[in-house]
Amino acid sequence: MRFPAGQLRQVAVAALERHGAPPDKAQLQADILIEAELRGLPSHGLQRLPRLLARIDRGLADPHASGTATWSRKSFLSVDGQGGLGPVVLMAAMRKLESAAAIGGIAAAAVRNANHIGMLAYYAEAAARAGLIGIVASTSEALVHPHGGTQAMLGTNPMAVGIPTDSEPFVLDLATSIVSMGKIHNHALRGEPIPAGWAVDAAGRSTTDPEAAKGGAIAPFGGAKGYGLGLGIELLVAALAGSGLAPEVRGTLDDTHPANKGDLLILIDPAAGAGDAATLGAYLDALRSSGPADPNRPVAIPGDGSRARRGRGLSSGVDVPDALFDTLSALAAA
Amino acid sequence: MRFPAGQLRQVAVAALERHGAPPDKAQLQADILIEAELRGLPSHGLQRLPRLLARIDRGLADPHASGTATWSRKSFLSVDGQGGLGPVVLMAAMRKLESAAAIGGIAAAAVRNANHIGMLAYYAEAAARAGLIGIVASTSEALVHPHGGTQAMLGTNPMAVGIPTDSEPFVLDLATSIVSMGKIHNHALRGEPIPAGWAVDAAGRSTTDPEAAKGGAIAPFGGAKGYGLGLGIELLVAALAGSGLAPEVRGTLDDTHPANKGDLLILIDPAAGAGDAATLGAYLDALRSSGPADPNRPVAIPGDGSRARRGRGLSSGVDVPDALFDTLSALAAA
Repeated sequence: MRFPAGQLRQVAVAALERHGAPPDKAQLQADILIEAELRGLPSHGLQRLPRLLARIDRGLADPHASGTATWSRKSFLSVDGQGGLGPVVLMAAMRKLESAAAIGGIAAAAVRNANHIGMLAYYAEAAARAGLIGIVASTSEALVHPHGGTQAMLGTNPMAVGIPTDSEPFVLDLATSIVSMGKIHNHALRGEPIPAGWAVDAAGRSTTDPEAAKGGAIAPFGGAKGYGLGLGIELLVAALAGSGLAPEVRGTLDDTHPANKGDLLILIDPAAGAGDAATLGAYLDALRSSGPADPNRPVAIPGDGSRARRGRGLSSGVDVPDALFDTLSALAAA
Repeated sequence: MRFPAGQLRQVAVAALERHGAPPDKAQLQADILIEAELRGLPSHGLQRLPRLLARIDRGLADPHASGTATWSRKSFLSVDGQGGLGPVVLMAAMRKLESAAAIGGIAAAAVRNANHIGMLAYYAEAAARAGLIGIVASTSEALVHPHGGTQAMLGTNPMAVGIPTDSEPFVLDLATSIVSMGKIHNHALRGEPIPAGWAVDAAGRSTTDPEAAKGGAIAPFGGAKGYGLGLGIELLVAALAGSGLAPEVRGTLDDTHPANKGDLLILIDPAAGAGDAATLGAYLDALRSSGPADPNRPVAIPGDGSRARRGRGLSSGVDVPDALFDTLSALAAA
């Protein structure tokens, strides 16, 4: 069914508060889930909330914690999330980084022991709207096999980049897997085969059977290069956050383990550089109006599609499965 | 013919000195070209030297300049390369950044008006060997079309990441194009078709004719994601360096225009973070020994292949076309 975003937000906030989250933290956690729904990314939306509430109930997520942040160096914030809600810990770190980035020109925060931070575009865009360049990366459970390999050894290791322009910010958000595990589950639910090259089964054989793929591993996007990028993120985040490497990571897909993946946030003040926002905006417009391969599909800029979907979602509501809405309503009342 | 690396280096240094480069700068410029040859990357090797010397002769490259570097913020170095040799300007910036990264934990340099900096792995590896994480990105002439587009609107926009471990450093270096323009020229020379999906012709039509592709545009690697990454690099570098955006960039492939692309270097001190190098090294070893798709090809780690080729090149020499060697010898004598 289609629900107004405000109604979904109310239910999500109520459920979080009912499970112990203070109002401000409940609102922030709910906001990122609703933003994912609005942008057409339900894998990072409300379907994650029941598990998060179970994690709170079991003491695996602490809805009061914002993490402890230490300036290990003048421009480097080392954060122990202490089991806090991912968006709460990340946004607390971002607020601290903003002034450091203004002073230093660049500043970074590395975060361990925070729960799932959700859609990375949220942070990249928040940075860009504050006039800063934001670079975000995160790790996850082992779901991706190396290029030329057969075992799940890497996380989906997404990264996001937000860059202010003189109009809407550029917001890139990509996982380094060729597809999300959520999409493979969707194919399994619909009984449809997956394209060759998406995944291997538990024995490491290439498969088009989504059920077999669920127990196997997803390919990196873009062959050796995408694998390299995903591996670079795996190492970079672990090196700085002191978080787990994929084979040991737990806690973003279960309600049985503490979350031990890592997150990295880098802010850069473009005013420290020599470029200008108007030039970037004009270039993006030139890209949008450059020759398309399909005359009916203009060249797209990362973030444009999300922004359009968000606008439609705000005006005409968001589709959420009835069963999920009922579950959330019950959790808000329980 | 196969030449000892030392002999190639001597010829390159002599040619650079003969064209006005001081000994230390000639040695650094020659070193990065020889390192590319050793690693099996001739597109970034000696074949670039004749054009670079022509650029010096025409006043487009200043072999004496190291650039002027300004700390626009405590951790941000704004560099005008003043037409200096790329490696000279970049390594001068890196030396300045190293102490800033030790103090701040993270520091960045954005460089405009430097000549081609060559193989990015050189800088990423130099950072890692100095115990720092190095992230390097660079832009170029418009050679790549957007995903879903038909016109060359983006540079090949390579990036590199170097991360220290307890054994050899992790060194990733990738262009965001699906293939280099050099490889398309090689196919043209050999009269071989290029695979579908590599390029479009000047009219924006998909082509397997390398001659047609030379006047067209190369695809980004990895579809929409690789395009997004390349575009992110395009914007990030221009925003910080104040360098040109691809359609206006000249000077790395010609000997007629000043170089107006940009370069970005970020150094991070892993000692500011909470991870440890031994854990990273053990993880990379686990990856190397994880199940391969082809039993005869173990899972590869970015940088391993280059390192092996470099070792072989140092012991048994480097293949360089006779005509190129003769040209360089003449340029060293002229």
